[in-house]
Amino acid sequence: MTTVAPRLTLKEFLRSLGRILAGRPQVPPALAGNELLKIVLNRRSIRRFAPRPLGEDAVAAILEAGRLAPSTVNLQTWSFAVFTAETWQAAFGRGIPFNAQRAVIVLGDIHRSRAMLDSLPHSPLVAYTLAIMNASLAAMNMNIAAEALGVGSVMLSETGRSGLLDVGYLKEKLSLPEGVFPLMTIVFGYPAAAPPPMPPKLPMDQIGFTDGRYHETDPAVLQDWMAEMTAGYKAMRPFSSLEAQLGVYRSKIGQAEEDLKRMIYQMENHPRM
Amino acid sequence: MTTVAPRLTLKEFLRSLGRILAGRPQVPPALAGNELLKIVLNRRSIRRFAPRPLGEDAVAAILEAGRLAPSTVNLQTWSFAVFTAETWQAAFGRGIPFNAQRAVIVLGDIHRSRAMLDSLPHSPLVAYTLAIMNASLAAMNMNIAAEALGVGSVMLSETGRSGLLDVGYLKEKLSLPEGVFPLMTIVFGYPAAAPPPMPPKLPMDQIGFTDGRYHETDPAVLQDWMAEMTAGYKAMRPFSSLEAQLGVYRSKIGQAEEDLKRMIYQMENHPRM
Repeated sequence: MTTVAPRLTLKEFLRSLGRILAGRPQVPPALAGNELLKIVLNRRSIRRFAPRPLGEDAVAAILEAGRLAPSTVNLQTWSFAVFTAETWQAAFGRGIPFNAQRAVIVLGDIHRSRAMLDSLPHSPLVAYTLAIMNASLAAMNMNIAAEALGVGSVMLSETGRSGLLDVGYLKEKLSLPEGVFPLMTIVFGYPAAAPPPMPPKLPMDQIGFTDGRYHETDPAVLQDWMAEMTAGYKAMRPFSSLEAQLGVYRSKIGQAEEDLKRMIYQMENHPRM
Repeated sequence: MTTVAPRLTLKEFLRSLGRILAGRPQVPPALAGNELLKIVLNRRSIRRFAPRPLGEDAVAAILEAGRLAPSTVNLQTWSFAVFTAETWQAAFGRGIPFNAQRAVIVLGDIHRSRAMLDSLPHSPLVAYTLAIMNASLAAMNMNIAAEALGVGSVMLSETGRSGLLDVGYLKEKLSLPEGVFPLMTIVFGYPAAAPPPMPPKLPMDQIGFTDGRYHETDPAVLQDWMAEMTAGYKAMRPFSSLEAQLGVYRSKIGQAEEDLKRMIYQMENHPRM
């Protein structure tokens, strides 16, 4: 439908960049003074961290937000693998991505919940879906709690070694039993710079519908999005490109697909995990 | 491992209830004054709503929080089906659950993202996983934005008709194309009463690990959890029981499993959605 990472003319590049820089949360004027809402709407993914250490109190409060997230039948289908810079280095032989101070690998966990509630019929896809959902709720809660403390963070699917795209490797590395799988890594630290501009978001009228039926997205909107993504990536990371980043995904996604397939197949064939 | 919905003696019931009522977020004293953190940690799922109408501004701000959530490669793999009490009634022939004022069915959406970025190899399980993850991040962001405005909400997997457990029915009802699926329904409104006590949460030392290896949960902790869930359910909903609620899940989960299986099978066999 659209082409990927188009080559932009200078005019297109500048126009796309202008649109990115003009991007702002759409806040109803009557609510513009709400400080809490501001935190939620102005949250950004941070990829440059200061060397300033993150206190134990902040880490504890962030993890607490994960622990207290809502979940289906309160089953808390998550586990958190928590790392300092030192333990991460020891585990993965390299630093935490972006020189962040702490990292949490968020795991979907159906292993524990099967023990908590073993009377539901065996339904691995439903269980898998709910585990991803709940673990993601916990992740977002941690991310916002961090924001509330002035701590920056970013959720990563691909870190070289520790995101969803390395599911097979990580299951072995962290000795994860059947039914436990890595979903993402969140890295935390104090931001080293002003927050980056808002990445290009689709307009509300393209993603929300109120007449009870799904609507196709306007192709022109999708094309603008792609141009903005390309321009924004180039402007923020002049020595890389969106295409290069996608190349990393492309190189790993086949293995991740195989690993997930095997994992779900195992769940289907071993009702009692 | 554990038994489900155990019959509790009066002593066990009271002990479990006491433990629930004593449950509090564990906030480091130095951070106890942080208002934003309080909002995140004291958020509760609300199931009793006042008839007070929810203003359009609040609804817009909540949806905006969903729109601005983070997502993998900024692909925004979500759509929101937004309902008022009237449109919900017209669509489903019944009121919004718990007499809430508004409802949003959060959809995972790989249909649009395939059009946004068609250069990644076909990998339906990775795409499905990321779509659930991202849509859940948007859901949690909406939930917290609502809290920030004093609006209560609850995420529902089973509403009679509009949650994940009705995936097949809803795909037809909302005319969802391949690659779009309902994940949950969030209902919003002003709380009718003081927030309920915190549901029993597993202690941090059981869900977090810091030595790079997964650890099994203490069976005694799981047993306490089950006793507290049973007692709490009975105390909050004296005319129902956890066992009855689980019965609803049990009756629908097989169909949902089949529907998800068919959906993923279709994605595997139709690379271009």
